[in-house]
Parts: sequence; structure tokens; C-alpha cells
Amino acid sequence: MKQSQLFTRTRKDAPKDEVSKNAQLLIRAGYIHKEMAGVYSYLPLGLRVFNNIIKIIREEMNAIGGQEITMTTLQSPKVWEQTGRWNDEVIDVWFKTALKDGAEVGLGVTHEEPLTALMTEYIQSHKDLPVYVYQFQTKFRNETRAKSGIMRTREFVMKDMYSFSKSQEEFKIFYEKCAAAYKTIFERVGLGNHTFRTFASGGSFSKFSDEFQTICEAGEDTIYIHRAKNIAINKEVYNEETVKDLGVTMEEFDQAKAVEVGNIFPLGTRFSDVLDLNYKDETGKAIPVVMGSYGIGPARLMGTIVEVLSDEKGIVWPKEVAPFAVHLVSLAGDNVDVKKEADRMYELLTENGIEALYDDRDLRAGEKFADSDLIGIPLRMIVSEKSMAAGNVEIINRADGSVQRIAESKIIEFLKG
Amino acid sequence: MKQSQLFTRTRKDAPKDEVSKNAQLLIRAGYIHKEMAGVYSYLPLGLRVFNNIIKIIREEMNAIGGQEITMTTLQSPKVWEQTGRWNDEVIDVWFKTALKDGAEVGLGVTHEEPLTALMTEYIQSHKDLPVYVYQFQTKFRNETRAKSGIMRTREFVMKDMYSFSKSQEEFKIFYEKCAAAYKTIFERVGLGNHTFRTFASGGSFSKFSDEFQTICEAGEDTIYIHRAKNIAINKEVYNEETVKDLGVTMEEFDQAKAVEVGNIFPLGTRFSDVLDLNYKDETGKAIPVVMGSYGIGPARLMGTIVEVLSDEKGIVWPKEVAPFAVHLVSLAGDNVDVKKEADRMYELLTENGIEALYDDRDLRAGEKFADSDLIGIPLRMIVSEKSMAAGNVEIINRADGSVQRIAESKIIEFLKG
Repeated sequence: MKQSQLFTRTRKDAPKDEVSKNAQLLIRAGYIHKEMAGVYSYLPLGLRVFNNIIKIIREEMNAIGGQEITMTTLQSPKVWEQTGRWNDEVIDVWFKTALKDGAEVGLGVTHEEPLTALMTEYIQSHKDLPVYVYQFQTKFRNETRAKSGIMRTREFVMKDMYSFSKSQEEFKIFYEKCAAAYKTIFERVGLGNHTFRTFASGGSFSKFSDEFQTICEAGEDTIYIHRAKNIAINKEVYNEETVKDLGVTMEEFDQAKAVEVGNIFPLGTRFSDVLDLNYKDETGKAIPVVMGSYGIGPARLMGTIVEVLSDEKGIVWPKEVAPFAVHLVSLAGDNVDVKKEADRMYELLTENGIEALYDDRDLRAGEKFADSDLIGIPLRMIVSEKSMAAGNVEIINRADGSVQRIAESKIIEFLKG
Repeated sequence: MKQSQLFTRTRKDAPKDEVSKNAQLLIRAGYIHKEMAGVYSYLPLGLRVFNNIIKIIREEMNAIGGQEITMTTLQSPKVWEQTGRWNDEVIDVWFKTALKDGAEVGLGVTHEEPLTALMTEYIQSHKDLPVYVYQFQTKFRNETRAKSGIMRTREFVMKDMYSFSKSQEEFKIFYEKCAAAYKTIFERVGLGNHTFRTFASGGSFSKFSDEFQTICEAGEDTIYIHRAKNIAINKEVYNEETVKDLGVTMEEFDQAKAVEVGNIFPLGTRFSDVLDLNYKDETGKAIPVVMGSYGIGPARLMGTIVEVLSDEKGIVWPKEVAPFAVHLVSLAGDNVDVKKEADRMYELLTENGIEALYDDRDLRAGEKFADSDLIGIPLRMIVSEKSMAAGNVEIINRADGSVQRIAESKIIEFLKG
């Protein structure tokens, strides 16, 4: 895409009321727009990153047998009343509104209840199990506090997967499969080294659940990490007993601030019992389905990447999530030949399926470089009088600043390598 | 995908309270699930169709220079109060709710106001124009009546595009470009022959707007069609004067029921005036931006396709929107060789990038064919003892029932042709 045609521009300052680093950088670089506290629109660059993250998650969910659906925001109270979760004291972040006839409806905060109810229409026999269903769907949560940029918002897309299994054993196999898929996801989005599978409280169904926590100063959680054994424990369950069960001691742990970027959670038969989700086994006996839930918020991931990987000059996107693979910067000035060469280079990249943002604007080199640093595309390719004279292009790595000069004939090979 | 693994199944009956043909068929075939009146979830097959429609629209919007964004559902009253549209008497389908601190918020019914406000940050000079911005975003409308299945719902994704131009002339050029793109979209989704660009009332900004109306018995609109001249007029502006201006007479028109599948609408400077969206021309003079809006509802399109093209046996999907290109049906019974051959055929299709739903279930031929008719994939490919003996496969066209026998070695060529 030609940058002269992109409707967004970088800006010097974020809105004064924006206190989080991720939103400040994303707003300044033109990725998002703040509508109100905890509510952000995604602009062209931001939507590209967001969609790249969704693509990664979708591929990994499909790889473990997930079937994608989309449920609804508007929620009828009935199933939620059955599980006791319509009550604002049980779930304190409901947004509620009403139909024209006065009937109350809520905006979905999560989807265990309606999906369990839906599955009663499709699960009857042991032959119908196991099954894994997921969606990318917008949740609404009436958060009192919304000061973490896109890491905690009142309206956000969640990838929520739910598993339906015949037994605890069958459930546990998938649970570990999903944990492995989550690990792959965090690696692919560039947070692998910073993210720990973390023991967390399990609610009423099991002793523990598993959170995936990314070490991050802006995080709302505190975790304790045993680096040698790669064990992490959420503060809420960090105690002598937990640590002892793991065969280590509390002195061996470091404390760190962290962001919960994913969680996987045994639900047992809590929802199937109440909402009558049973299957018949080989003998015809009705048995409640064993469920699990598995969540990742793509926007929280996006915000965490910005918090963790950015530097003083701006954002640093990992390859798989970057809005473009290459930021092609033309330093043509008044030199028509350089402009033509940059145009030709843009065509070359496009023809070879390499997505580039092409800074074809009539600006000084310093402004273009500052913008490019702020926007954070992994590779910057510079076409200038100097590079033309040398018959190569200069390629600068955004993450480490390293510079390579690549002969024109080798560019595609280099970029695809 | 193997049908034995798909969690949905066809069902004999739709819910009793479902009166619309499109929702009845889509529910029976396992495409959607009714959560409440006017609120539907999309199941795996349904989401595939929905995404195919979105892909077509996106491609055509990108082709005319559209830049994709995603705005928010939660709306702060401020900008809406400025234009007078926060008032429930002006927009009578608002859902409204409140933040924890009591501040009122609405669920977006459309996005002229917030987008105009957003664009004031990016449009300052004549050099910033024209610009075209669109999104696929969920709208909420508190409809009193919701009896048209997925054609009119309380929660639905809308593709809404907005154009920002320097002048009426510049606006009009894009308006016609978008009208042409819409025509392409309706052709690609298989409704080209049934859809008419239709004169409709223009509101306060212009004499007419343009609707795209698809002839359909379930439609809520009435239009008048002049087939020889390919002119259509919405009942609301169908009168002697309109007809005379077009150089024809009222006797030459047929009346028909129709569904509004798209509209394009001049907005003039109504929003830019109130929300201060101005640009500076070459002389530095501030001039209000001329706007237009362009809407298509992918789900309404999907419902209309079902209404218009289905037959007594079920749904008939056009090629580009079908959930799969081929419905591979194995009639193996207890014959292991036929089963192996069908498996091999499924692999062959998959390897060649042809998306197939593979009915590998252990059911009678009659049940499989009835399901296949209901689901409505364009081509059914049958592997049986008979076809194996003849060294070919039987391919049945869902739309016209025609049968072709294709030699194994020619199958891929045939399907890609």
C-alpha cells in the first residue's frame, strides 16, 4: 500500500487522558482510535495486525480439531438464570438493556451458557463426542477500571473455545493438546520467550486452572517464576503447599508483573448438569458431558506485544503479526530516477507477493525514518541516490538496527528466505 | 471436511416459532441457530457461507480504493446529540445501556457520527481527499418486528462504507463507481439477474438515493420495474412525476415484492457541517467535506439467496458463496474398496485445493441424498460400486439436477474448469 494513500498519519501526541503505553503508541502510529475509556476503533494498520493475530489463532485452533462458529452478543436471561449467572452480584460486569416489549437482554460477557444450550441439540450419543467449538466474538464487560489501553477494554473480541468430552480422561487429553497449541500461538506472535504457563486458582471444578502469563511491567497480575524448572505460579495460589507439591521451595522463585494472555479452564459438568447436556453411552445410560473452556483475547495479545517489545523510538512488530513485511522508503527528493526506481521496487515486491507499505510521500528523510520507527514494520528498505549508485538497497532491521546491503537481483530471495 | 466430524446435523423441523423460509431452511440444514427472535448464531456451515460473502464484498470494496477499519459498538452520546440522532424519536431502534458510573451509552445502529468525528483528526487539507473508509461491523437495532429470519435481525454485521470528497462532482464519480461495484457483488453472489438498482427517496440531501432491490416474495418492499429499460422505482417515490422525468409511462411498469440488499446514499454536508469536518482548499479556505454512505448486509444477502434460489428439496448455493465446492458422497455400505476409493478421492480433492464436504457417514443413500439436497452444495460427486466399476464418478448439479459422468483422470480438470 502506498503511504500517501493511507488515510491515517502519525501524530506527536496521544490523547491526554490516555495513560497506557500500548494505546499511546498505537494511537500515535495510527493503529487505533480511542472512542471512550476502554473502547477503541481499529484503523487500517491496526486491523491488519489484529487480523494477523486472528489468523494465527484460527490456524492453531483448526489444527487441533476446532470447529468455528459465531454466537451472538444479545443474550436472553433464561439460560443464565438457570446457572445463577444472570445475577449482577455473580457476574458484576454485565451490560443489560431491553427489547421494545420490555424483555431484558444482556450483552454476552462469555458464552458457556448459550453454547451448552445449543449443543443439547447436537450431542445425544457417545458417537457425537468429543467435539471442540470456538469463535472470535465480541464480548462486552462493564469494567469499572479501563486504563490498560487495548489490554483491558469494555468491548473486545475473544477467541473462546469450548470442549465437550465423554470423560475426565478424554477432556484432559484435549486440555493438554490445547495448552500445546497455545504455546505455539504465543511463539508465533513473538511472545514465546516472555510467556509462562502458570498455575492459577481452579474455581470449584479443579484444584488449578492454567493461565498463560506474559512478563510485562504493565500487567495487572503478579506471578512467581522458577526459571530453572520453567514453573510459574499466580500470586493467588502461591503458597507453601503449592510450592511443596511441585518439589521446590519458595526461595527459588522470582516475582514478576505479568499479563494474562490466555487461559484454559476445566469446567467439569457444572454447565452440562444444569442445562441438561448429556450423552448416552454404549449401554444407553445418560451421562453429563465434561466441558472445558479456552480463551485468548487477540487485542490483549496485540497490546502486550507493544508493551513488551517496543523501544524508545516506537513499536517493534514480530514478523508474523506485522501489518506489512517491508516498509519501503523512497528518499527521492527531486530526483525522478530515484522515484522511478522506488516505484519499480514496489511493483517487484507486489508481484512477488511481499506485502509492503511504500512511503512515497514528499517528506524529508528524518521525518520518514521517525514515522517508520514509530510504525515498527520489521524490515525497512531504503531506495536513494546512494543505493542506486551502488546497485543495491539498504535493509534495516527494526528490532536490532542492523543494516544489510542487498544487491537488487537478490532482494526477493533475501525477503523470502 | 469429513461430515462425520461436523458437529451439526440436518433436522426435520425448524423451531415452531420460526416463520421465515430462509431461517427454516438454514436451521434445518445446520447453518444457523436461533437464539431468540431476530438473533441468530452462525454454525460452521453458515459461517463459511457468511465469510464467502464477506470476502466478495471486501474484494470489491478494496478494488475501488476502500480502506478497511473496525469501529465500536459502544457509542458515547456526545456526537449523536450534536446531530440530533441520540433522540429515540429520531432513531427509534437504539439499544441503550449505561456504564458503571451511570453514563449512558448506546449500541451503534450505524456509524456516520463517530466516523465523521474520527476523520476530523485525519482530514485537514484538500490533499487528504478523497478517501473511502469501510468496515464489517455488528450493528444493533431494537426492531419491534423480527420475523424475516436472517434478513432483518436485531444484531447483524453491516458492511458500511463512507466516502469523503472535496466536491459534489468528486463525490458523484465515486458514487457511480460504488454502484458498479455493488452490481458486481450481486452478480458474484448469484443474485445478479434478480437485483435492480432502484430509485428511492433521497431524504433531505438529494432528490433520490439508490437502493439495490432483489425480487423476492418474502421482501418487505414493493418496487415497480420497467424491464425493457431496466428501470426500477421504489413504491415510495413511484408517481407520475418520477416516471415522466424518466421518459416512460406508469403502464409500462410491473409491480414486485423485493428485498433491499444494498443502498448507496448521498449525505451531502449534513454530518460534516455539524461535526466540523472541513478541509482547506488551495487558497486556505475551509470547506465542508461532501460525504456518502454505502451499505450492504452480508446476512441479509445470505437470507435472500436462500429465499430466491432454494427449491422444494432445500437450499441451492451459487458457486462463490457455497460452503464447499463439492459434496463428495460415498455410497460404500459394507464395501471396503468403495470406502477406500472415496477416501482417496477426498485426498485428491484436498491436495488440489478443492474444498469438499465428504459424507463419510454410515447412512443409507436416500438419507445422504436428502441431506445433500437440503445443504445445497453446487456439485455432488458420488463414489459407489457402480461408479468404480465404470471407472468414473457421477457428478450431479444441485441447481438443475443434470448428471455427468467424469473419468477419474479428468475430475480435477473438470472441477477447476
